[in-house]
Amino acid sequence: MLDLITPLVVPNDTKIVLLSLDGLGGLPRPETGKSELETARIPNLHRLAGEGACGLLRHVAPGITPGSGPGHLGLFGYDPQRYLVGRGVLEALGIEFDLRAGDLAARGNFCTVDAQGNITDRRAGRISTELCVRLTERLRTIALPGVEVFVEPVKEHRFVLVLRGPGLGGRLSETDPQVLGKPPLAVRALDEASKNSADLVNAFVTQAKARLADAMPANMILLRGFDSLPHLPRFPEAFGLRAAAIAAYPMYRGLARVVGMDVLATGATFADELVTLREHWQSYDYFFVHYKDTDKAGEDGDFEAKVAALERFDAFVPDVEALRPDVLVVSGDHATPSVLAAHGWQPVPVVVRSRYSGADPVTAFTERACAAGTLGVMPAQHLMPLVMANALRLTKYGA
Amino acid sequence: MLDLITPLVVPNDTKIVLLSLDGLGGLPRPETGKSELETARIPNLHRLAGEGACGLLRHVAPGITPGSGPGHLGLFGYDPQRYLVGRGVLEALGIEFDLRAGDLAARGNFCTVDAQGNITDRRAGRISTELCVRLTERLRTIALPGVEVFVEPVKEHRFVLVLRGPGLGGRLSETDPQVLGKPPLAVRALDEASKNSADLVNAFVTQAKARLADAMPANMILLRGFDSLPHLPRFPEAFGLRAAAIAAYPMYRGLARVVGMDVLATGATFADELVTLREHWQSYDYFFVHYKDTDKAGEDGDFEAKVAALERFDAFVPDVEALRPDVLVVSGDHATPSVLAAHGWQPVPVVVRSRYSGADPVTAFTERACAAGTLGVMPAQHLMPLVMANALRLTKYGA
Repeated sequence: MLDLITPLVVPNDTKIVLLSLDGLGGLPRPETGKSELETARIPNLHRLAGEGACGLLRHVAPGITPGSGPGHLGLFGYDPQRYLVGRGVLEALGIEFDLRAGDLAARGNFCTVDAQGNITDRRAGRISTELCVRLTERLRTIALPGVEVFVEPVKEHRFVLVLRGPGLGGRLSETDPQVLGKPPLAVRALDEASKNSADLVNAFVTQAKARLADAMPANMILLRGFDSLPHLPRFPEAFGLRAAAIAAYPMYRGLARVVGMDVLATGATFADELVTLREHWQSYDYFFVHYKDTDKAGEDGDFEAKVAALERFDAFVPDVEALRPDVLVVSGDHATPSVLAAHGWQPVPVVVRSRYSGADPVTAFTERACAAGTLGVMPAQHLMPLVMANALRLTKYGA
Repeated sequence: MLDLITPLVVPNDTKIVLLSLDGLGGLPRPETGKSELETARIPNLHRLAGEGACGLLRHVAPGITPGSGPGHLGLFGYDPQRYLVGRGVLEALGIEFDLRAGDLAARGNFCTVDAQGNITDRRAGRISTELCVRLTERLRTIALPGVEVFVEPVKEHRFVLVLRGPGLGGRLSETDPQVLGKPPLAVRALDEASKNSADLVNAFVTQAKARLADAMPANMILLRGFDSLPHLPRFPEAFGLRAAAIAAYPMYRGLARVVGMDVLATGATFADELVTLREHWQSYDYFFVHYKDTDKAGEDGDFEAKVAALERFDAFVPDVEALRPDVLVVSGDHATPSVLAAHGWQPVPVVVRSRYSGADPVTAFTERACAAGTLGVMPAQHLMPLVMANALRLTKYGA
């Protein structure tokens, strides 16, 4: 898709805003037969649906539930099946670690092993974050030949391991056997280029075990999701856009940074994010603005809270419209239906409104109504070409 | 797609008509919120929509605005991203030059250069077509070793250069630097097979400069869009159809000839085209009938004229139905919304009516209504298999 688009890009001074509601899509609650979007009072979103072209976005493939990485890469115009972002990288981005090209990142857990070295608790009884911080300080004292070692606490039993140095292939097996009563596995290199990495990681684990010997219940570690930053085409060059990301949560800032967007400093609330949007309006062509509350409520299985989050969001829509973006897009990175209390595979409503977005029978921004839109059920990675066209930033294909 | 279809083709005596309205799709006019199709009085097209299966055709990909080449190749069942038709070829087809396999074609401009040879006007002040004709006569006197040279006037400053001979690779850089104040560039071969072509073209340019030295303001030429006829599977063999093209405009006749259709002599109007259709009804299985007025009005940004063009077309529909085609298809090669005054990326309404085309909720032939059709939003290259099935000309896949 990018190979097709990039040569067609032409300059323009049009402005594009993507409002991404995390976990936007939902499902009907059995009691009412209505989804969160169908229940919420969201007059502005319904009006936008009436004015623009609607459809449903499928981020990966039918039946596939996207994680935050693939979900956002799709919205940014990348094929999430081609450009994978591993868990180690996502975890590092999520704590705003300054991950660099070539760094090898892994997700770590503190765990408990018995006297024989067999795992008795894969999460070390979910130790406190405070203890996690102290134990990662111990692990930071580990030195490995030829590389820098970073160990960063995340939350409870979770931490991030990053190795920095030359020649760190990232194709490694995991140490977590995923069952109790067995010892952690040694890491194996899955390709030739990762042999040095495997040796270094195994040396790290050996030293970690020694340093944690007296730290019961967190007396051992498990490592998985080894990965390096993917080699993604840079979004600003691929689409010819000065692109800014406005997101209160580190994970989404990290994902935007991976594709080369400028990540703007902002506050903790969506209102703060919109202040940031206004302040930088003249300096960018494209704004990715992230709204987290919908996902949080969905993950909690709290239908009413998700309805309320949608209603709070809806009230902000006129503030964005007041900036008069040439193309306004509202969608999300995946569904998080409250009845599922988790990410879902269901395609996610999308509306694209511009002067040229076209006629559409849809007048409500709901899963059911958007299914009848002119955009159809489309792969999320097709959104950016469509948005670029609406911004009059693509020339004709073929004479 | 063709690899799948061709082995399934079975003979039948059913007849297929594709009525292709150039630039069919439109957009709502802000004053009324209605598109050209929604504004026009087109009772016959609406009736057809009620009788057949409807949908929207996407010719290249979401957000991609098709040129006439990709737009028509899609309607003819070819993947427009796989089979590219270059500008030189389209330009030659557009003047009905008898382009043959292996010919190398380029689009030429007369331009103005100063005493230092730097370009001062890339279009030579848009000289008259009459002067263009006289200057191409000068260029025709250029002889090159081992090849025939054809120089054909097009319009104003534009001409077509065709070299005919063995071993003429077509992967060449362009001579137009796209800026003023610099001299035309020498052509470079972009692959090994095009080195001979590059030498010949550069020799042509050198001689052209000498022959035009006193022809101020048209004292030099620029060449671009070098290409040869693509190696397309032939439509009659791929689909087992005796296929005829009826089009008043040279470009569309040329595109039909590229895929191996018989191009029928016809008059200048759509009424003439329908006379031709009736005359040849018994001799062919498939008719591609082209209607140009919708595109012209759209390109002019003339909403009312496009509405009028649709209404004129609608009045002809019963004449086509009177021939009792087994499968009648109405669609277009791309959108040309009047509000855009140019080709657009919006998917284009399509109706397929046959005894077996199936039930459909759509009762109006508009962008909005067709979005809810059973055909969905589908790649244009999927139309031909569907049409073949409706004509009972495809056997079962797998036992």
